[in-house]
Amino acid sequence: MEIGKKIWIIPEGYIPRESTGQGREFISHETACILNTNNAPANIEITIYYADKSPVGPYRVTVPAQRTYHLRFNDLKDPEPIPLGTDYASVFISDLPVIIQHTRLDSRQAENALMTTIAWGT
Amino acid sequence: MEIGKKIWIIPEGYIPRESTGQGREFISHETACILNTNNAPANIEITIYYADKSPVGPYRVTVPAQRTYHLRFNDLKDPEPIPLGTDYASVFISDLPVIIQHTRLDSRQAENALMTTIAWGT
Amino acid sequence: MEIGKKIWIIPEGYIPRESTGQGREFISHETACILNTNNAPANIEITIYYADKSPVGPYRVTVPAQRTYHLRFNDLKDPEPIPLGTDYASVFISDLPVIIQHTRLDSRQAENALMTTIAWGT
Amino acid sequence: MEIGKKIWIIPEGYIPRESTGQGREFISHETACILNTNNAPANIEITIYYADKSPVGPYRVTVPAQRTYHLRFNDLKDPEPIPLGTDYASVFISDLPVIIQHTRLDSRQAENALMTTIAWGT
Repeated sequence: MEIGKKIWIIPEGYIPRESTGQGREFISHETACILNTNNAPANIEITIYYADKSPVGPYRVTVPAQRTYHLRFNDLKDPEPIPLGTDYASVFISDLPVIIQHTRLDSRQAENALMTTIAWGT
Repeated sequence: MEIGKKIWIIPEGYIPRESTGQGREFISHETACILNTNNAPANIEITIYYADKSPVGPYRVTVPAQRTYHLRFNDLKDPEPIPLGTDYASVFISDLPVIIQHTRLDSRQAENALMTTIAWGT
Repeated sequence: MEIGKKIWIIPEGYIPRESTGQGREFISHETACILNTNNAPANIEITIYYADKSPVGPYRVTVPAQRTYHLRFNDLKDPEPIPLGTDYASVFISDLPVIIQHTRLDSRQAENALMTTIAWGT
Repeated sequence: MEIGKKIWIIPEGYIPRESTGQGREFISHETACILNTNNAPANIEITIYYADKSPVGPYRVTVPAQRTYHLRFNDLKDPEPIPLGTDYASVFISDLPVIIQHTRLDSRQAENALMTTIAWGT
């Protein structure tokens, strides 16, 4: 049984410039939580859209069979890192059906804020 | 490949009257993050619905080809600004398919709160 | 053009027992933001489900034509108020298509927390 | 009338290791709020997916007829508890249609953060 969709969109993207927490856990970050329930790896191409310049990508990630991968946008490096403090949006295209959920932890202040939504799949 | 829907709804709307942060980044705001993956600009008409008066609009925004636009409701001016501290809802009608995500940053207090959801598209 | 669905579900419900804020704006609350874009009033019946007793309802609300109504669950009184500090869920059945978004403001502590999602419509 | 879906996915999962609150209400937790509107119990099998080991499950829960069950992932014990501070994802398969919403309360810090989304149903 195949579960999910092959195209996912997250229109909201913004990695805060500052963090007050210590360690990787408390750094301000945006995450795309990807679940691959298939018996084969899912190969995913990500394109980042901006407000005032051409899209950048594809970034490539592979989620192993029957694994979840909580991808931090902060960790994307190739072809280039996403600049901090900048509006962006993302499109995920996978060769196998997956499901994606978007989360942001904002630690610009002493007390963290959280938000989440299932991405828009089609 | 066309990605998205032409009609999007955000039933929740409320721009807090106060902010404690400094600078545009920390002003309490509601945002509609719009992604246009098409090769042509998307022309969008927004109507604002209220609890106790007739709808106001259309407000018009254009999202360039292959760009994202993080629209702050606070910035809508024509035909009239949205009053602060007032319940509202919004309907987006686009001439091309887009995807919209709703976010609020509430900085009425020292520590900000965040919330987000993909809007309802049809 | 009719926009929306006639059945909406919000599985998560919990009105915190405490609030630290002052005034209606800062009382801990759960809200169902309803948008009726039709040219006629939408009559909605709400049923509240609990973990350990039979469902209660219907509660009845009417959203006027082309208006939004940000219903606080705290305000439901007839047939009975929803107890604080208690898990519940809600089902909305409308005679006209509407769109519903769920929001909670939690002010049990000095700094508020927020969360939101579009309800599940069918 | 049957309302809901039989398969639900929550790609995001992470139970924070620390809590600052007192009592069950303020312990950091992830919740799956399940609503069963049917006239019969819904039997649900949950599988937990990880980043770097094989899926674990099924965990079994039953939601009585016309009841809601706000399941804390922290409470899952059999076949094994979910480790704290670890990325995971979850798949729910029910024998009757249900609706599921995901919520996290993070009390690692003095002021709690909240997030929620309707899970992805199919």
